[in-house]
Amino acid sequence: MATDNNSPIGIFDSGIGGLTVVKSILKTLPNEHVIYFGDTARVPYGIKSAKTVREYALQITDFLLTRNVKTVLIACNTVASVAVADIIERCGNIPVLDVLTAGTQRAVAIPHKNKRIGVIGTLATIGSGAYETSLKKLSPDSSVFSKACPLLVPLAEEGWTDNEVADNVLRIYLEEVQQHNIDSLILGCTHYPLFKNSIQRILNGDHIEIIDSADSIADMTKTMLTERNLLSTHTQPHFDCYVSDKPQRFQELAERFLGQKLKGVETISLT
Amino acid sequence: MATDNNSPIGIFDSGIGGLTVVKSILKTLPNEHVIYFGDTARVPYGIKSAKTVREYALQITDFLLTRNVKTVLIACNTVASVAVADIIERCGNIPVLDVLTAGTQRAVAIPHKNKRIGVIGTLATIGSGAYETSLKKLSPDSSVFSKACPLLVPLAEEGWTDNEVADNVLRIYLEEVQQHNIDSLILGCTHYPLFKNSIQRILNGDHIEIIDSADSIADMTKTMLTERNLLSTHTQPHFDCYVSDKPQRFQELAERFLGQKLKGVETISLT
Repeated sequence: MATDNNSPIGIFDSGIGGLTVVKSILKTLPNEHVIYFGDTARVPYGIKSAKTVREYALQITDFLLTRNVKTVLIACNTVASVAVADIIERCGNIPVLDVLTAGTQRAVAIPHKNKRIGVIGTLATIGSGAYETSLKKLSPDSSVFSKACPLLVPLAEEGWTDNEVADNVLRIYLEEVQQHNIDSLILGCTHYPLFKNSIQRILNGDHIEIIDSADSIADMTKTMLTERNLLSTHTQPHFDCYVSDKPQRFQELAERFLGQKLKGVETISLT
Repeated sequence: MATDNNSPIGIFDSGIGGLTVVKSILKTLPNEHVIYFGDTARVPYGIKSAKTVREYALQITDFLLTRNVKTVLIACNTVASVAVADIIERCGNIPVLDVLTAGTQRAVAIPHKNKRIGVIGTLATIGSGAYETSLKKLSPDSSVFSKACPLLVPLAEEGWTDNEVADNVLRIYLEEVQQHNIDSLILGCTHYPLFKNSIQRILNGDHIEIIDSADSIADMTKTMLTERNLLSTHTQPHFDCYVSDKPQRFQELAERFLGQKLKGVETISLT
């Protein structure tokens, strides 16, 4: 079945973090139909082998293609670091965008005084060196300083993004990055946009631009759909949410990530 | 091959948390040969179905049986809440102990003024109601107050068990449990013994007995081996550590959990 302007935008992540991307897309492109798949039964991907992550990501891609999506957005940093080429191949002429490329392109596009870029992410993302590799490719003379912040995902899932505990944790993690005199800080995990206010407050005065990869991929998607004449002609947004397993407190968590009420969620198995 | 006194004790967990049980066993039974298996490639079990957890637990049990263990200790609360009967059946005449039974038996054995017992654990363990069910079976007139503490596992894995952040997090979580005027508090997760000092300091003055299920299962194992004349006749401890995948910072983390240097770790796949 051919896709057209009113076909949906497909977005996926290993879990619920990618809902921050959905939130940015619904804000930036308020007339679009969005389909989200969160592989909550098999999260986290970060500890799995590249081969397994590729296999899972292609299963999800196939699912989204059966829903006739007009574009696929990879809202998972682990998938973005190991499986983009496979997904592009599988998607044929359906365009594929990912959070890692979106974040790094935005980072190198802004004017940098010192050409020093900070990246925070999960242990898996930082350990993979994927942001560093991507940034160095786009801007070989920039310096990249990475810091794994393993407590931020559980803090976000506990809903503690703006309390004293979050503030203490962020201060400890950011202190090291700040010392490198960075111009910008990439939030290299789809959970991290939830800490944007706290991070901004802590870095206040340091003139560090915070790069939210959810907002970056939303802007990139808008540009791409506009250029290809693929913007929806609907006037109402539409959102379908699928997960592979419904974890405890799912509704509460998802609504916090999404920033709005979630009407319904369908649980489907891909295996 | 028949087991004898000098056959090893087999211990397993979904990840590395069970190393706190190994630590207690090596302290309580310093002459024993211990084999540990941590299913680090498939952690966490808490989000998986009971069927999957049973399947994984039986694969690990089979592995330990090939190593001729004289007893199997389940150092994983998720496995203990869904797969004990299957493991006992698979083990035949090899005795099986688990952290959940050890913790609850210790809790009901101590004198309780108010018969009010607190339990802290992961979202999965607390959500399953396994401790509550087990405690009510042993002591029907006791009242049980449970609290999920999802940030403690990531804090332990970050090594922040005794700093200001840990203190703040524990105070928030424990405040609710303390209000119920409990006599004892079960640490219902194998990561939690690492917070014992901080918890003791925070509860200090409340006369609440802290029940460490790692110490409880070690004492239970000593009693069982003594009664069955199965104590080792060796004079040197011996420890073999197996994992299904070696995650980042494994050595550092494992040594923190174990409380001593780790000589070698073998990675093996069960699938």
